[in-house]
Amino acid sequence: MNTYSDPLTVLSLIASITIFSGWPPHLLDRLQSQSRRWLRTEGSILLSQGQTASGLFIILKGSVEVTAYSDQGQLYIQRFAPAGNLYGLVSVIDGNPSTFTYVAQTELELIFIPSEVFLDVLASQPHLWKNIALYVASVQRSVFAAVSEQMFEGLNVRLVRIILNLTETHGIRDSETGHIRIRVTQEQLGNFLGVTRQTIHKELKHLEKLNYIALEYGELFVLDKKALEGGWGRQPQI
Amino acid sequence: MNTYSDPLTVLSLIASITIFSGWPPHLLDRLQSQSRRWLRTEGSILLSQGQTASGLFIILKGSVEVTAYSDQGQLYIQRFAPAGNLYGLVSVIDGNPSTFTYVAQTELELIFIPSEVFLDVLASQPHLWKNIALYVASVQRSVFAAVSEQMFEGLNVRLVRIILNLTETHGIRDSETGHIRIRVTQEQLGNFLGVTRQTIHKELKHLEKLNYIALEYGELFVLDKKALEGGWGRQPQI
Repeated sequence: MNTYSDPLTVLSLIASITIFSGWPPHLLDRLQSQSRRWLRTEGSILLSQGQTASGLFIILKGSVEVTAYSDQGQLYIQRFAPAGNLYGLVSVIDGNPSTFTYVAQTELELIFIPSEVFLDVLASQPHLWKNIALYVASVQRSVFAAVSEQMFEGLNVRLVRIILNLTETHGIRDSETGHIRIRVTQEQLGNFLGVTRQTIHKELKHLEKLNYIALEYGELFVLDKKALEGGWGRQPQI
Repeated sequence: MNTYSDPLTVLSLIASITIFSGWPPHLLDRLQSQSRRWLRTEGSILLSQGQTASGLFIILKGSVEVTAYSDQGQLYIQRFAPAGNLYGLVSVIDGNPSTFTYVAQTELELIFIPSEVFLDVLASQPHLWKNIALYVASVQRSVFAAVSEQMFEGLNVRLVRIILNLTETHGIRDSETGHIRIRVTQEQLGNFLGVTRQTIHKELKHLEKLNYIALEYGELFVLDKKALEGGWGRQPQI
């Protein structure tokens, strides 16, 4: 990947983002014409925790690792954001520092909409703030659901859920075997769940023994997605 | 408490709520004139998880327990909401069921603003949606902070933080001894943290041994708030 996507692709991607749904075409055109496109190499830091976002970022191609350090200095991964995801919104609207750090996991193509462009459109069409409020409310609902899950679900269930989510957003399916390959390290899985690599390793080995998954260096293959979905990583009945 | 507060108190309370800050006086008057005032007895269910809110609720006097059941049927307490708090907002704006159940912890006086009244004002003054978006964004930030705390902090630290929060919102200070009394059961503290009453009991006994707190039936006295703040419930240096 070393060329930019065509303008039509960009426009249709912008239009597909929840916060822009229902925006009239002339405003979407205005956003697109004032947006910039960026190519970034794997490992680039796109926005750092504590830094105020200078605009909205939309992932056009590639994937972004979203992380944060806790007050105690522990790294945790909030999500792997796939193409089509938007980030930077809360920092742009409230002008406060970003909660998360965003790093390119792959080569990346981004659409960057500068804060002033976005906020100018909203100032001229204030009813569009309603979309923003509804979008942030929907994120809040999913974060509350995650809090409850984190509080009450066992590690095995939460691990299986993360693996299943990653098959949707980051899985590459082998058309012959049907196996789904995910590029993720055991350390990263630990950082999703706030536990050590060693703890994750034990859980993964259990899933491997059940032939639900297979482990390779820096990769994981889902061999039996149905079983994984059905079992939620529960202990097998003996 | 068995009479309603005077209209001026109600108006100034509405004006003090974050989402109404900067609203012009005539709109605040309109909200107040179309709002209703409710008295509720201790234990009344005000809004149930899964039910769509029929309006915004503002706590004028008293306290509300905000709880939810997880998918696995475990109860957890999200917070004790004191006077001045607003709830029902997300359900009112997106029309989806409430994430939480709200129960009167004490006798209660509420201001109820019906959804249609609130949404009509917003429809006539769409720029006010900006306030809503910013408010929801600020809640989202604090929920993300709570997720990180929950993932990485020990139970003792999280317990002390909850006790300190409760001294602010629900503490009654004895002017003679300086002790701060909080009406909360050990089971409730367990439900804040997703652990059993027995586990909480052990932690509380430790704090009692340090003379930071004293335990009574259904109550807890903070004897040394400074020590509690300084120690964050850490093990004492021996």
